[in-house]
Amino acid sequence: MQLGMVGLGRMGGNMVKRIREAGHEVIGYDLSPESGRDVSSLEELVSKLDATRIVWIMVPSGKATDETLDGLMGLLEPGDMVINGGNCRYTDDQLNAKKLAAKGISYIDCGVSGGVWGEERGYALMVGGTDEEYQRALPIFEALKPEGKDGLVHAGPVGGGHFAKMVHNGIEYGMMQAFGEGFAIMERSEYIDDPTKVMASWRSGSVVASWLLDLVVRAMKEDPDLKSMPPVADETGEAKWTIEAATELGVPTPAISAGLFTRQASRGGSDDILRAVTAMRKQFGGHVTKA
Amino acid sequence: MQLGMVGLGRMGGNMVKRIREAGHEVIGYDLSPESGRDVSSLEELVSKLDATRIVWIMVPSGKATDETLDGLMGLLEPGDMVINGGNCRYTDDQLNAKKLAAKGISYIDCGVSGGVWGEERGYALMVGGTDEEYQRALPIFEALKPEGKDGLVHAGPVGGGHFAKMVHNGIEYGMMQAFGEGFAIMERSEYIDDPTKVMASWRSGSVVASWLLDLVVRAMKEDPDLKSMPPVADETGEAKWTIEAATELGVPTPAISAGLFTRQASRGGSDDILRAVTAMRKQFGGHVTKA
Repeated sequence: MQLGMVGLGRMGGNMVKRIREAGHEVIGYDLSPESGRDVSSLEELVSKLDATRIVWIMVPSGKATDETLDGLMGLLEPGDMVINGGNCRYTDDQLNAKKLAAKGISYIDCGVSGGVWGEERGYALMVGGTDEEYQRALPIFEALKPEGKDGLVHAGPVGGGHFAKMVHNGIEYGMMQAFGEGFAIMERSEYIDDPTKVMASWRSGSVVASWLLDLVVRAMKEDPDLKSMPPVADETGEAKWTIEAATELGVPTPAISAGLFTRQASRGGSDDILRAVTAMRKQFGGHVTKA
Repeated sequence: MQLGMVGLGRMGGNMVKRIREAGHEVIGYDLSPESGRDVSSLEELVSKLDATRIVWIMVPSGKATDETLDGLMGLLEPGDMVINGGNCRYTDDQLNAKKLAAKGISYIDCGVSGGVWGEERGYALMVGGTDEEYQRALPIFEALKPEGKDGLVHAGPVGGGHFAKMVHNGIEYGMMQAFGEGFAIMERSEYIDDPTKVMASWRSGSVVASWLLDLVVRAMKEDPDLKSMPPVADETGEAKWTIEAATELGVPTPAISAGLFTRQASRGGSDDILRAVTAMRKQFGGHVTKA
């Protein structure tokens, strides 16, 4: 089938390759002329697609997504479909779907996991929308997903795909934090000769065997104490949204929060807390902390 | 080679099968006559082994381990070796090794992961001791470990095997907590039709793909909302020891702690905290909480 792709960055660009390899026709558009785009405007993209059209958008959440959707709303026709594969918040999907429905345009959301490995391994996809819409886009999902029976799920109504991906990423934050904590303990203990050797051994037969373990061992083999990595980590929104959703649902999420809070602290998020703690210690005990 | 095994429970019993399948001779002893033991006392066990002997002990940490070690100390001879495979605290290994060294008996520790799957998959082994001692027992480790290059590591000096296993289990607590949190959020959200379907899809192509994910999906396929499981979890010591070691080393471990604290709370560990919170709410606001 035929697909328009908006956003040819690290994710979108590799996804296009995989969809084309499966025999589909993809017309790619990106703001940047260096992206290897096939067309140089949204107008041109839409004009080159046969009705009824499917356009996959793979751009950052927020302003870029809103602008793309607004642009497409003025160009697409009733019966066309938009698949939002970016890291959009699930609550925004409901608003987007409503906005596009007013023009007769379908909107479904698709959470995509797989990072730079996706082109080779396939992308794990989580889709939100009606059954009919899901079935309509299924050939594209089949092209992107990994081989085998797993890696693709129709998670729920519109927003459900990004909700599932959000929870997935929240779990990922907790798992990565747990591996990081274990690494740090072994790195500093005199009981462990070589943390890389220990963690590599866990890849077989142990309860913590996982793709994340494979990846951290891969990094440690190149740089055993990981000193080439900065001791700061970004957060991309999903763990924060997970915790917000969980709080609303009454689910305590200390492990996911631990991952998020540690990353926020690494970016200076705790600085004011520590200033207050230090100020109080000074007040009651005259303690002076050397920075 | 020849090995004595003390403790033929769920772990020890299955390990004996795997060691025997590799062609080694094992003489098994257990306190319980129903264990399928080969001998009915430690004395008989030691008398049936050819010097110099190797005895693997696979009994609960604490009293059972101490009594077994005391018994063996009076029976074994210089040059003999004890392998402690139980879930002993790493600090106890150093004491045990010193005690046995006074009688010329070697002591090495071996953390064992794999649970009920170990007999089939092989056991992940983490060993603490000298190079010489590790090499001496290597044929037994080779029999127990999974196929392939991973699953066995000489982690460090005496205590290092249990230290590595302890950190491994700490990470496991954090990972299980993260998966549990994600499950609970999806279970309660209207955005997700079927959490089992979503988590099953993650087994391929996603960043959280792992053996623990496989296991939780296996459980959810039998009981999608996991209501047959009691909402309480035991803790077996390792996460507590991990946090103690980490605190001493100055490593903050919020994710591992989240796993431990949630389990402790499930056993009533937070009850007094909640009584105090409720008492204060009542004092300042007249709030009455219904149990």
